[in-house]
Amino acid sequence: MSEVVILGAGVMGSAMSMPLADNGHRVRLVGTHRDSDIIESVNRNHYHPRLKVHLPKTVTGHYHHQLDAMLTEDVQLIVIGVSSVGVVWAAETLGKLRRASLPPLLMITKGLSVATGELEILPHVMTRILGEHNIHGTPVAAVAGPCIAGELAARRPSSVVFTHPDPGVLHWLADQLRTEYYHIRPHTDVMGVEMCAALKNLYALAVGFASGMLDNLPAENEAKMHNPAAAMFGEAILEMKYLVEFMGGDPATVDGLPGSGDLYVTCQGGRNSRMGRLLGKGMPYSEAKARHMPDDAIEGAELALAIARGMQPLFASGRLDAARLPLMRKVFQTVVHDRPIELDWAEFHR
Amino acid sequence: MSEVVILGAGVMGSAMSMPLADNGHRVRLVGTHRDSDIIESVNRNHYHPRLKVHLPKTVTGHYHHQLDAMLTEDVQLIVIGVSSVGVVWAAETLGKLRRASLPPLLMITKGLSVATGELEILPHVMTRILGEHNIHGTPVAAVAGPCIAGELAARRPSSVVFTHPDPGVLHWLADQLRTEYYHIRPHTDVMGVEMCAALKNLYALAVGFASGMLDNLPAENEAKMHNPAAAMFGEAILEMKYLVEFMGGDPATVDGLPGSGDLYVTCQGGRNSRMGRLLGKGMPYSEAKARHMPDDAIEGAELALAIARGMQPLFASGRLDAARLPLMRKVFQTVVHDRPIELDWAEFHR
Repeated sequence: MSEVVILGAGVMGSAMSMPLADNGHRVRLVGTHRDSDIIESVNRNHYHPRLKVHLPKTVTGHYHHQLDAMLTEDVQLIVIGVSSVGVVWAAETLGKLRRASLPPLLMITKGLSVATGELEILPHVMTRILGEHNIHGTPVAAVAGPCIAGELAARRPSSVVFTHPDPGVLHWLADQLRTEYYHIRPHTDVMGVEMCAALKNLYALAVGFASGMLDNLPAENEAKMHNPAAAMFGEAILEMKYLVEFMGGDPATVDGLPGSGDLYVTCQGGRNSRMGRLLGKGMPYSEAKARHMPDDAIEGAELALAIARGMQPLFASGRLDAARLPLMRKVFQTVVHDRPIELDWAEFHR
Repeated sequence: MSEVVILGAGVMGSAMSMPLADNGHRVRLVGTHRDSDIIESVNRNHYHPRLKVHLPKTVTGHYHHQLDAMLTEDVQLIVIGVSSVGVVWAAETLGKLRRASLPPLLMITKGLSVATGELEILPHVMTRILGEHNIHGTPVAAVAGPCIAGELAARRPSSVVFTHPDPGVLHWLADQLRTEYYHIRPHTDVMGVEMCAALKNLYALAVGFASGMLDNLPAENEAKMHNPAAAMFGEAILEMKYLVEFMGGDPATVDGLPGSGDLYVTCQGGRNSRMGRLLGKGMPYSEAKARHMPDDAIEGAELALAIARGMQPLFASGRLDAARLPLMRKVFQTVVHDRPIELDWAEFHR
């Protein structure tokens, strides 16, 4: 039994308190400035209003200004549960606490950054910023794989991947979190795993185009649009493999839980799919966002907005072959350039 | 424009008449002994009662005893649209017509046989039986990839794979069938493509277990079971790759349309998923079949029943590593050995 801090009280950060608490850890759930109502509710009666479950009694809620006080010497693990746009804030906030060292970090945040001019996965962003604050040697691991937060919070059987280059770190982390419903596979291909974790949101949005196209295409037999959705699913897998390989990861990482498994679960609903459907109807992104999902963080769209400009030089210089990423470019066209969707099926599956 | 025979008037065989007719071919749709009501309806008013669409006027219906008469000299292509259990019948029937040669065959039937004591894909079964009737040199190609018949019949955008070892044959076939909604990718890895086409039914049944398990597991927040479904989806991809490689196919074939794309679409509903759900509830297969789906052909279950006995010696001799196929063995346990499902998550993703 030990003390664990979770930074970020959104659905996924908070759901991680289940396997932690079930392993006997005491969890200090520290909300960001957006999570105050959640923290209040958890402290009132243990109820998490967005997960819609009662958290274990050993989980206590805290506000972000209390982070310094919560990060006592006996904290053995910090789980980073902020949104992708919050990672820099989290890293800077931890850095400014001026600790000589930090306990291991486990990141559940997914995304990619082009802040340095190159594509960068979030564990590397975290390590880089901590280094700028003279914090070195902190293991920064990450969770990926198919895991809907609400299902983990309901203790559904969930199989995930923990990734870090050091098998010893992975072994220790898995021991802290493994339960009879939370199944952890160690994976040392950090680049492959994290590329999958980020890209699956963008591609789930793309697969969602098909259901939006359906709304414009009545059929005598009420046929759905699973064929085009599946074509885009297959194309997404090919593009993810190409991008993982480009970044120096192992394309085989896309085969199992981190790639095909996680893309599958992300296509079964959720905000990326909803936005994809709106875009598939032919709506420009700006209108879809403003009119239908103004308060939602849509990770696939946020990723596109974050990386599109940074990827342009890679296409222009030929380092990345644009012809092998037609579906990604369609997402850029709709989300970043705000143009109505137009698919060219001949571009896919080359 | 030419004459084409489709043998088998079920949903997929009949749906193939759409791209054929739209390419100007005259289609002779020849039903099996199970299709008489369909042929009658098509000849009455062009309506296909199971596809729930009107077929083009250049499609004519014929009964199976008329096959010999329909196979005139000017027929340039035969599409084989029978069920997997009907392939031997189709091959024998064609063989007994005592033609010196046959026009190219395009098989849409999916499955595997162990009739020879070894796993055998259906184009090879067809070629072998035709050879026994002294018909040699007939190109036997196959269609695979994500394609729900009712969606093709509604001219939804559908991306499929045509497979044959000879690129020239593939090029000619694609020219006969390509339309603005039917997108054809040639693929020379016949073994990989056909293994995927058969196995995806078995694995879609397995992914369906999760929704059945849901019915036994209420949750405070009404959580679904997408996490376990996704874990099994990822496991299925790994097992398909292993089996494709074992058979001498290219594991990369599983990445795009024939593997991940087709498994995705097959998991979105249909008979395999429905049976998987019943088994996931804990029902033995015999009961699920007899009580809930007595008249349905469940391709994933039929495949398991067809190959389980033939695969046993492969496991026993160590030629196949049973530890790398835990999900397939669960399907064998439930369907073939009629035992209630029991999943061991620790077996997966190794």
